[in-house]
Amino acid sequence: MGEKSQKESVTLRVVLDTSIFVNPDSRFVFGKSPDEAFINFLKEIKGKNKLSFFMPPSVYRELLNFIEAPPTLKETVAIRKQPPSSYESGVPAIMVYELIEEIRSRINKGLRIAEKYSLKKLKEEGGIQKRNGEEIIKNLRQEYRTALREGIIDSKEDFDLILLAKDLGGILATSDKGLIKWASKLGISCVDSGELKEIILGH
Amino acid sequence: MGEKSQKESVTLRVVLDTSIFVNPDSRFVFGKSPDEAFINFLKEIKGKNKLSFFMPPSVYRELLNFIEAPPTLKETVAIRKQPPSSYESGVPAIMVYELIEEIRSRINKGLRIAEKYSLKKLKEEGGIQKRNGEEIIKNLRQEYRTALREGIIDSKEDFDLILLAKDLGGILATSDKGLIKWASKLGISCVDSGELKEIILGH
Repeated sequence: MGEKSQKESVTLRVVLDTSIFVNPDSRFVFGKSPDEAFINFLKEIKGKNKLSFFMPPSVYRELLNFIEAPPTLKETVAIRKQPPSSYESGVPAIMVYELIEEIRSRINKGLRIAEKYSLKKLKEEGGIQKRNGEEIIKNLRQEYRTALREGIIDSKEDFDLILLAKDLGGILATSDKGLIKWASKLGISCVDSGELKEIILGH
Repeated sequence: MGEKSQKESVTLRVVLDTSIFVNPDSRFVFGKSPDEAFINFLKEIKGKNKLSFFMPPSVYRELLNFIEAPPTLKETVAIRKQPPSSYESGVPAIMVYELIEEIRSRINKGLRIAEKYSLKKLKEEGGIQKRNGEEIIKNLRQEYRTALREGIIDSKEDFDLILLAKDLGGILATSDKGLIKWASKLGISCVDSGELKEIILGH
């Protein structure tokens, strides 16, 4: 215990989400494009021995989809690609309860949106002739996705990030609202790209 | 260990879902109405000392919504109302992964259904004038709910049942497809009302 906590006090473990390099609102801290943001980040962490960086392999693969010229393995060696070890171990049951409640309420919202865009409502509004079909579908999709996905864990990559941060006793660098919300339920601290940059500069 | 397994070998613990007494396809084994099914069940389990029956309080409250003349506390004492003790303890992370994947695919299905019922598609089918608005909404709701809810754990009552059966090392009596599917992921055996009746008769 003594040895472990001492070790942790000198090395801060940071789990990186793609949003840090990919989201337009977030990556500007490190660069204009995902490629530039990622390369600049790799430069800035060089020689920072008291920080260690991790990405679950699933999330690293996701990042590569956004990067046009992926850095070499040697260049990214400072980011350890590590899956969470806790597939078989436990997540507090309370988290699953909350996930189930959240899903239930989202599903209901989705139905309200579907109803809103269905023929009947639009007929009632008297807008059938005026409105463009393509635009309606576009609006429907946008509204539905926002209602059902924003602020929820909706991919195994998200859950990999949370579990890995939990395994490592580390912090999670992300600007994803859903991740921040669910990580906090497991007692994981989150930082955004601006805070991450401050942490790197301060080490 | 020896004592515990010996004890379990003489008493079978059965966690009861409302579907056993409420679902028309299931309750006929015990009675024509939920009231009749529940009362008959209580009669049949009298004196069965090698069987013990449990319901999470949340599920028992749910059952009472379907029962017009609730039995007295004394009559239902044979069913222990016990919440799961594992709110804070763990659920295998793999189960959460599967839940997240399931939700993701259901959400996508929901959007396809919303699109199908939206103005554009109905216009393409040329059926605007012919179709009745109320009927469209009814069909939309039915199709959406089936796609998003059937076969999924969508309530905390469902999760209470699964956790309690896991806590007790018991079996789960249910005819709910979602419960059966998710209980099996945690190694919990399920029986339907017919099998439950056989078990009661055999003890």
